[in-house]
Amino acid sequence: MDVLILLGSSSDLETAKGCVDTLKDFKIGHKLVIASAHRTPELVDQHIAEAEKTGTKVIIAMAGMAAHLPGVVASKTLIPVIGVPLSSKNTGGLDALYSIVQMPSGYPVATVAIDGSKNAALLAVQILASHDTALKKALIDYRSKMKDAVSKANKDL
Amino acid sequence: MDVLILLGSSSDLETAKGCVDTLKDFKIGHKLVIASAHRTPELVDQHIAEAEKTGTKVIIAMAGMAAHLPGVVASKTLIPVIGVPLSSKNTGGLDALYSIVQMPSGYPVATVAIDGSKNAALLAVQILASHDTALKKALIDYRSKMKDAVSKANKDL
Amino acid sequence: MDVLILLGSSSDLETAKGCVDTLKDFKIGHKLVIASAHRTPELVDQHIAEAEKTGTKVIIAMAGMAAHLPGVVASKTLIPVIGVPLSSKNTGGLDALYSIVQMPSGYPVATVAIDGSKNAALLAVQILASHDTALKKALIDYRSKMKDAVSKANKDL
Amino acid sequence: MDVLILLGSSSDLETAKGCVDTLKDFKIGHKLVIASAHRTPELVDQHIAEAEKTGTKVIIAMAGMAAHLPGVVASKTLIPVIGVPLSSKNTGGLDALYSIVQMPSGYPVATVAIDGSKNAALLAVQILASHDTALKKALIDYRSKMKDAVSKANKDL
Amino acid sequence: MDVLILLGSSSDLETAKGCVDTLKDFKIGHKLVIASAHRTPELVDQHIAEAEKTGTKVIIAMAGMAAHLPGVVASKTLIPVIGVPLSSKNTGGLDALYSIVQMPSGYPVATVAIDGSKNAALLAVQILASHDTALKKALIDYRSKMKDAVSKANKDL
Amino acid sequence: MDVLILLGSSSDLETAKGCVDTLKDFKIGHKLVIASAHRTPELVDQHIAEAEKTGTKVIIAMAGMAAHLPGVVASKTLIPVIGVPLSSKNTGGLDALYSIVQMPSGYPVATVAIDGSKNAALLAVQILASHDTALKKALIDYRSKMKDAVSKANKDL
Amino acid sequence: MDVLILLGSSSDLETAKGCVDTLKDFKIGHKLVIASAHRTPELVDQHIAEAEKTGTKVIIAMAGMAAHLPGVVASKTLIPVIGVPLSSKNTGGLDALYSIVQMPSGYPVATVAIDGSKNAALLAVQILASHDTALKKALIDYRSKMKDAVSKANKDL
Amino acid sequence: MDVLILLGSSSDLETAKGCVDTLKDFKIGHKLVIASAHRTPELVDQHIAEAEKTGTKVIIAMAGMAAHLPGVVASKTLIPVIGVPLSSKNTGGLDALYSIVQMPSGYPVATVAIDGSKNAALLAVQILASHDTALKKALIDYRSKMKDAVSKANKDL
Repeated sequence: MDVLILLGSSSDLETAKGCVDTLKDFKIGHKLVIASAHRTPELVDQHIAEAEKTGTKVIIAMAGMAAHLPGVVASKTLIPVIGVPLSSKNTGGLDALYSIVQMPSGYPVATVAIDGSKNAALLAVQILASHDTALKKALIDYRSKMKDAVSKANKDL
Repeated sequence: MDVLILLGSSSDLETAKGCVDTLKDFKIGHKLVIASAHRTPELVDQHIAEAEKTGTKVIIAMAGMAAHLPGVVASKTLIPVIGVPLSSKNTGGLDALYSIVQMPSGYPVATVAIDGSKNAALLAVQILASHDTALKKALIDYRSKMKDAVSKANKDL
Repeated sequence: MDVLILLGSSSDLETAKGCVDTLKDFKIGHKLVIASAHRTPELVDQHIAEAEKTGTKVIIAMAGMAAHLPGVVASKTLIPVIGVPLSSKNTGGLDALYSIVQMPSGYPVATVAIDGSKNAALLAVQILASHDTALKKALIDYRSKMKDAVSKANKDL
Repeated sequence: MDVLILLGSSSDLETAKGCVDTLKDFKIGHKLVIASAHRTPELVDQHIAEAEKTGTKVIIAMAGMAAHLPGVVASKTLIPVIGVPLSSKNTGGLDALYSIVQMPSGYPVATVAIDGSKNAALLAVQILASHDTALKKALIDYRSKMKDAVSKANKDL
Repeated sequence: MDVLILLGSSSDLETAKGCVDTLKDFKIGHKLVIASAHRTPELVDQHIAEAEKTGTKVIIAMAGMAAHLPGVVASKTLIPVIGVPLSSKNTGGLDALYSIVQMPSGYPVATVAIDGSKNAALLAVQILASHDTALKKALIDYRSKMKDAVSKANKDL
Repeated sequence: MDVLILLGSSSDLETAKGCVDTLKDFKIGHKLVIASAHRTPELVDQHIAEAEKTGTKVIIAMAGMAAHLPGVVASKTLIPVIGVPLSSKNTGGLDALYSIVQMPSGYPVATVAIDGSKNAALLAVQILASHDTALKKALIDYRSKMKDAVSKANKDL
Repeated sequence: MDVLILLGSSSDLETAKGCVDTLKDFKIGHKLVIASAHRTPELVDQHIAEAEKTGTKVIIAMAGMAAHLPGVVASKTLIPVIGVPLSSKNTGGLDALYSIVQMPSGYPVATVAIDGSKNAALLAVQILASHDTALKKALIDYRSKMKDAVSKANKDL
Repeated sequence: MDVLILLGSSSDLETAKGCVDTLKDFKIGHKLVIASAHRTPELVDQHIAEAEKTGTKVIIAMAGMAAHLPGVVASKTLIPVIGVPLSSKNTGGLDALYSIVQMPSGYPVATVAIDGSKNAALLAVQILASHDTALKKALIDYRSKMKDAVSKANKDL
């Protein structure tokens, strides 16, 4: 498994879909687990341990509100951790953004946009592509299709 | 020891003074430990275990920025946790406030004001005073002195 | 009665439900009263007096917008006060959060998340459980069930 | 006494000076009292009662952080209350602004700018001037001098 | 006419209703005019002039977004101006709140809560009641009914 | 005069310097006037009238806090108005930014960065350069020098 | 073509309508293109080049979230760039507002209100009207109609 | 060169020091260049091209205010980009944080804390360590020393 995806809560599955689908598109071996930093710290530990054993290259962690999951994971492994702050009704996700991005010296979390689940997957793919020419080509194709979509949109005007 | 005080970093000692001094004034048995949720999770665990063994009634945890310490402690014990969000230059402490107060269902942190280290101590004393008549009296005296200070300030006008 | 719940307005009853139901689950003696700090200060006083007479251990106060209720209650009793900031359309509850958490020295309010009515109840239960072994066991069970829910969610993936 | 000025804390005296000096300039009978909504509620009540007995026309209340003073005063009298939110290091006064301006239906506080102590006095003078032609003239003179200051500043360029 | 109500836009009529209805309840002579500070400055001037001639005691001005209307009115008359910041989709009314409350020295606006149209009316009534015993009694009745509503709500629990 | 610069207050002169110096560098005819929207509306009107008569192409208006000046000017002329929100201690200039940029439909203000006095001048020069080839060349030179400064900085590393 | 309109994404077409319709009302030659700063930088370059060749006087660029488009365009041409920050669910557009308005020295973007697409068009028309008397007349008519709409709204009260 | 560091301005050198020193400590081949997205886009392009040719694994980009640099770089290469939002006086860096983290779908930037220059380096080292056992060991040592520092701080209490 190249990428481990950890969700803080099953209510985050909807947003996680963009991440999972993108990894599937790039045929990246991945695993999705619900594992709360507070409710199931042992489960978090166990999946980090498995990730380290199986040579996982990136961990993506998503959480809302106090959103400790990405930072807690980052403190327990040297595998790079990508954090996705999830929005919630009252604060629009600024609480989760601050909780994930403002990590203290020594334990960085690579934070992406609020609800930016798809970009978390793409960042993981970019990290993997550094040592995988085929993947790099797939990314070039992907960006090329994004460009084509703009041309098509202009024709549709 | 009735109250355990955990600081995320030695740079928080200055702010912690208001807390320690207040507990001393009320003659509350306490212990101050620097223990980071990210750098030294085992140390955090070890002090929580000791707190549970020695019948500690309240844990006060202070941290700035992503400020995971209070929430992480709250997830590992049933002892009530009081969280003190610490200010920092760029966000004025709103990051720490959100990270501490916005805990998910199941793991509350009793949050006090930004840099409200003294009030954390007083809240702990109030919780202890529920089962300690002498302490309750001391709190009544304390509030009475605060009232007197206002009278004096008015005379000084 | 172990816990007194004060609501600033009858429009807060919906959010208060999470609090009341949780206290019921733990079989905590409680009482719910609507008592505004501004409209009915005498009613607030009267219920605080009753709470003190009957040995109430925790007061939970919920309010939105300027949200003075928790702080006003905290200034009138030594019983620990838990404050729940309620969201409203325009500010998402940041106004109530600031009004409740930023209490001046001497009068702490144990603040929980915006709309965190359930966590207010759990914090109260934790404070009560310090002197009640059966309650502590019930809390351990409660957390254990939260853990099981995660396992179940992972099986449902 | 036409105007009663209430300060939440003696540390607010510096900011209150702009208010007091302006009232003196307009020769408005006034009284400055330090009276905290939390520490000395009876003192607040006592000065409100005196204000009502002596026909006070406006109460100015200043406070920082949770800043309950103006709203608490507004709930205890029908005399119009002007609230001055005071800045503090961490939030720049947004906490006090929200706590003062976001009052619930029924109990308005006439809020002025953060640290806007001078404008609080001028608003009081405007309210008094509705029934005092001489005072209205003094206000016209005051504004005229402000205009002259601009002319002078342009000449100094 | 005792109170002049100025709306920045016809789209604010919905929110203005709370203000108008409250003034009607208290039988206050009033007039509602749509008059934009930017689109129709002459209309604003004309209604201020009329207000001054007819002895109007309070002007209430409501506006959203940049919300210059209350401040512009305050700069053109010595009649006390109450400002109501109106919410809008993107900023929740913080833009209007800042634009109305943060007036420079010399030109205060008595700001009430975001969308606090009803409280603007009540503040106006309080100012008028300073010189009108019957009105003061009506306000006492009004507050008394608010108190009764709380009692009723508690019985309905 | 091609550019009229209006300052809300003489205390803004320090920040205005960047604007004036830049216009001087480009040899743009300009005039700096202190003219408050609230204190001296006639002075504002008078300078707008003069600007229209003399064919002024751009008006730059700077103000802090409620910062009505740029919007008020924009409502009184069809000459494009550039607004500079000025920072102040408590809000960092977000109040002025909102007050200037959130103008209602019909009366746009071309807003630049908080304290962005130099960029206001450059935007004015760009507007003027549309019909002035020499000025366009000067702008190209200016940008070229900025580029050179980067090269130099890299050499100094 | 006098005005070039660049949209960061086809999902912004809805908001862009207000801009396009206003330019049509004033019979301004314009062109609408979807061209992302990140996905299609060459397309952006190509349309800027065409704009410079055809004597385009103003470029309007709209974007949401990180919203780099207006600033990137401003760095590549001396044609004045008007930026429209677009709102999005989580931040209400404050992210886009900051990204567009806070440009560094040398590269101003004339920023209008969040979603202020219509005002972007009007600002462009004002800039064009500086050298076009007929257009100036059309703007005077436009403002006159806005004034009439207020009169009509008052009659409808 | 394994890591390319791009600074938006020479005024950011002070903050960049933490990044450079950390990379030196880990003996990572790196290069520091000042290259503004707006002033010197060609320089940015040229260094990205060189980075791609020399097999650079990570690019770190730092910028303040509108802070387009990291996002612009991310749109021009598939090398993972780490973004460091830099604080500035007025907004505390929230402007730069939003501009860097809120990237649209397709172009992620791995964002770290405001002024988190040291953590940017550590995140780069973690990415490199995925394929470098010696580097992984060095990171383990580094974290071990951070832990020791806590022990030492506790002894110093």
